[in-house]
Amino acid sequence: MYTFYVPVKLIGGEGAISSHREQFAALGKSCLLVTGRHSAKASGAFQNVTDALESQGISWQVYDAIGENPLLESCREAGRMAQACGADFVVGIGGGSPMDAAKAVAALAGNPELPQEELFACRWEKEPLPIVLVGTTSGTGSEVSPTSVLTCPDGRKRSITHPALFAAVAFGDPRYTYTMSWSSTVSTGLDALSHAVEGYFSPKSSKITDGFAEMAIPVLWKHLYALWKGEELTETMHRELYEASLWAGYVLASNGTSFPHPFGYFLTEQFQVPHGRACTTFMPAFFDWVSQKAPKKAGKVLELCGCSGEVFRQVTGELSDTGWISMTEEEIQALRPRFTGLKHYGNVPGGYDADRALDVYKKLFLKTAEK
Amino acid sequence: MYTFYVPVKLIGGEGAISSHREQFAALGKSCLLVTGRHSAKASGAFQNVTDALESQGISWQVYDAIGENPLLESCREAGRMAQACGADFVVGIGGGSPMDAAKAVAALAGNPELPQEELFACRWEKEPLPIVLVGTTSGTGSEVSPTSVLTCPDGRKRSITHPALFAAVAFGDPRYTYTMSWSSTVSTGLDALSHAVEGYFSPKSSKITDGFAEMAIPVLWKHLYALWKGEELTETMHRELYEASLWAGYVLASNGTSFPHPFGYFLTEQFQVPHGRACTTFMPAFFDWVSQKAPKKAGKVLELCGCSGEVFRQVTGELSDTGWISMTEEEIQALRPRFTGLKHYGNVPGGYDADRALDVYKKLFLKTAEK
Repeated sequence: MYTFYVPVKLIGGEGAISSHREQFAALGKSCLLVTGRHSAKASGAFQNVTDALESQGISWQVYDAIGENPLLESCREAGRMAQACGADFVVGIGGGSPMDAAKAVAALAGNPELPQEELFACRWEKEPLPIVLVGTTSGTGSEVSPTSVLTCPDGRKRSITHPALFAAVAFGDPRYTYTMSWSSTVSTGLDALSHAVEGYFSPKSSKITDGFAEMAIPVLWKHLYALWKGEELTETMHRELYEASLWAGYVLASNGTSFPHPFGYFLTEQFQVPHGRACTTFMPAFFDWVSQKAPKKAGKVLELCGCSGEVFRQVTGELSDTGWISMTEEEIQALRPRFTGLKHYGNVPGGYDADRALDVYKKLFLKTAEK
Repeated sequence: MYTFYVPVKLIGGEGAISSHREQFAALGKSCLLVTGRHSAKASGAFQNVTDALESQGISWQVYDAIGENPLLESCREAGRMAQACGADFVVGIGGGSPMDAAKAVAALAGNPELPQEELFACRWEKEPLPIVLVGTTSGTGSEVSPTSVLTCPDGRKRSITHPALFAAVAFGDPRYTYTMSWSSTVSTGLDALSHAVEGYFSPKSSKITDGFAEMAIPVLWKHLYALWKGEELTETMHRELYEASLWAGYVLASNGTSFPHPFGYFLTEQFQVPHGRACTTFMPAFFDWVSQKAPKKAGKVLELCGCSGEVFRQVTGELSDTGWISMTEEEIQALRPRFTGLKHYGNVPGGYDADRALDVYKKLFLKTAEK
């Protein structure tokens, strides 16, 4: 049994926005743009969006204070702004952070004072506003997923997933990724690889999502491997990574993530490791596990990458670049409650548990004589 | 540039309906079931749907007079019935005919006296009702497409395509296809192959739709080839054909069809050739054309099928089984207006025109001394 449901109108390719301006007009007369401080403008996406809005007579305001790992409180502030300016829809422009934030802003626009627990339980009084997403990094797949990952006031990352958070329209113009740095390209590319690989092994996977994963994995691997070998960024690389990140997004949207994602959240919160690198830190351990529990699919991943399991683990481990992290036995043991009963374990073939989680953490980060 | 937009919640696999009964309750309290006379019940789908409706306290009525190549006037009658019983949604159960009819019924339920031209221009006053589709044949892909093909009072087949005609939910339980006859299996399998192959060559094709086509083509071909060789039907064959017909449906929904479809409509209207056989009659000519205009993709089709172009043309031609049709030069010339300026020509690589259409018809059906 499987469900495949991604109701996003994905408009992809060069010039996607300027040739589909009418898509904005179909959603209303006024909108709030949600962006970070830099990439929306640097990529040219912001200008293309505002040109389109103006051509359609749509009024707009901007909330441009979304940082990496977006804060719930920033989204609330933007939600109030959306309400105040009578926005009919919300446009998120940027990488995963502004896009995830835009989803939360859409949900909060009608309910800006909604208590945190109600928001994470998707118990809103007024339905979220329609959402338009414009990606500028090649990783998160947020364009086609119904999930928003936010950082709460207690510093913890938490996710909301709801069908109302699917974008009505997502624009995927690969040119917006051409200004990405080497470091962002690696980190977001690793994130996309994680989505494809983690989702490929989910019990929710279907032949349809396997098809998307099997398209995405070899393309992502080819370029990540080239970057690991020290090759330079090219536009072809950016474009292909971007396309493949969207395919991985269809896997993510349908199957969710496995244990590398929640394990990675801690590294981001505690050590400010960029999201893609943080998750992929656990890819070697994940691949060890699935090689035992789902050897046929694990073999297929290696066939798609054209490499051995050893190389797969080495490259993902080294690109993650978290070998400098060191934790004590006590610090690791303190993670037990956090890693107990994670919903993501349902997505791991053969299941998983906190004991194993702590073992993985120890093997990676316990750097004392006890190790 | 491409658009990928299939907002259908596809729930597939054995037991899909009985384990997702709540999907009906989300759509309302009352519905009209639209079926043909036979396969909905014979397949077990009808019983599964009504069990689910009753478990959710949803009242239902049935319109079960949809024939092959559904008549607009039957849909109008069912639309009046849906209006009279206050249906909140419409459920189509069966092959392409009841599913296509259900889409038109949903559109007519709020506007049962809508003039024909308004309907085909999608100018309805009230929005179509939500639609649930349950497929029982492995061919049409109607489950995931926004198109309804109807036979008008003048005997002509015409299609309506509109996003509001996408199903809200489609159930794809392959067991419903296990009762299909050899003849229906061949005809609907050929239809699915046509969707995948015609769409693969469309200028609208994207890497995403190519992915679906490249998944569907080898599976459809494997079983059609086996049937051509005289192998018996098996449940595995039915199941795999059904899954692949849905993948081909994603290609159809995104890219539409090419010239074999409209050329086939005439054979169905005039000679009662089943739809899949009628379209595939023109597959050898289509394949000749694309081998010239898009040789790389044509080569890929043959690679996916693992056969030569000669075998591809022979098998599709012979399974179509329309060699008995004979037409005069005058009859063929009379088709010129019909085949002039078809919108489908925009979907043919390098374009197409009425002169070529008549040449194809002559080559196939002109069986006089003049040939």
